[in-house]
Amino acid sequence: MTITITAFERSPDGGRGLARDTRVRWALEEVGLPYEVRFVSFRAMKEPAHLALHPFGQIPTYEEGDLALFETGAIVFHIAHRHAGLLPDDANARARAITWMFAALNTVEPPILELANARLLESDKSWFEERLPLVEDRVRNRLKQLSARLGDAEWLDGAFSVGDLMMVSVLLRLKPSGLLNEFPNLVAYVARGEARPAYERAFDAQLAAYRASHRPAD
Amino acid sequence: MTITITAFERSPDGGRGLARDTRVRWALEEVGLPYEVRFVSFRAMKEPAHLALHPFGQIPTYEEGDLALFETGAIVFHIAHRHAGLLPDDANARARAITWMFAALNTVEPPILELANARLLESDKSWFEERLPLVEDRVRNRLKQLSARLGDAEWLDGAFSVGDLMMVSVLLRLKPSGLLNEFPNLVAYVARGEARPAYERAFDAQLAAYRASHRPAD
Repeated sequence: MTITITAFERSPDGGRGLARDTRVRWALEEVGLPYEVRFVSFRAMKEPAHLALHPFGQIPTYEEGDLALFETGAIVFHIAHRHAGLLPDDANARARAITWMFAALNTVEPPILELANARLLESDKSWFEERLPLVEDRVRNRLKQLSARLGDAEWLDGAFSVGDLMMVSVLLRLKPSGLLNEFPNLVAYVARGEARPAYERAFDAQLAAYRASHRPAD
Repeated sequence: MTITITAFERSPDGGRGLARDTRVRWALEEVGLPYEVRFVSFRAMKEPAHLALHPFGQIPTYEEGDLALFETGAIVFHIAHRHAGLLPDDANARARAITWMFAALNTVEPPILELANARLLESDKSWFEERLPLVEDRVRNRLKQLSARLGDAEWLDGAFSVGDLMMVSVLLRLKPSGLLNEFPNLVAYVARGEARPAYERAFDAQLAAYRASHRPAD
């Protein structure tokens, strides 16, 4: 059954792979599933056809036969749950890997989103410069705790899992900020994620799409 | 096997049930599992014994035999996955219910957390009054989209599921802000959640704990 995901027609991230379709592409590559991509414009994302698929008007979405899903975490979990390669067999280890996925999305990512909002939506405000360090400290606190837990382990809990896939993806958003560099073990952790052949394939695929969409008209 | 969760020794929410242990209590009540609660002080939450259980120094945690979990979403998912009552039997419907759980935690809750941070951590700042409407609009945008999707349905996708449990729990955090009142169908949706006997038992249990901890010393 063909899997079709959606991605930005013209990604605004400069080809850095920070749009959330990269997370889904990575999961699909880890379990070895082929997929197709339908590109959606910013305008089309807010129109009824796409909103029927994604009530919050975002990408990615996931279609497979008569199943339609939205929300990156749910899509990545679905892939990990249905196919071997991203979750351990042992039930308790499985629950712990899933725990890290939720921790990435609901504990580590929210302050990172707040930082992104500050930079993207409030950089022209009078308070921007003074407020930025407060927001950065919220991110830093989480990184400090994560760094302490990871220590010199390779991955968060035993072998690489969907929890690492999601945590690395969330941390990648911090690269432009330089904040990650304060935690060398997290830098190395993210680099291990990026060095996985499945991540490289996912990154290259989104980069090819980015370049195609930003090519000058023939 | 005894299930033990952790909760604030002295909840800072005035007994309104907004601390995240209420979400876990609710899930346990929905599936009919008894549980014990270990109360943790703010000081103990940041000490090594608790950090070993919860790397981000928060509550709730979940212990059952040799399984130890943290992160509310992961705990609630674990309960829903292992016990009947919170997920539909049909595989596709199950994936959609899980989708709503992730949407609650990673799309709807982040702007609500940002609003909570503004009120809790920045109310003494010079920019607070001017910035607040911007943050409220971020929440409002998500509520508008959620309200449009819900329409006049009772729950988000068919029967009540773990997706509704999480979405209602996230929306409950907005009650003090008044923002929810702009969307009557969401107000009714949250009220339906609160009217469930399992929610009422969970709410009453956390309230009893709150009252016991705030009782003047005998």
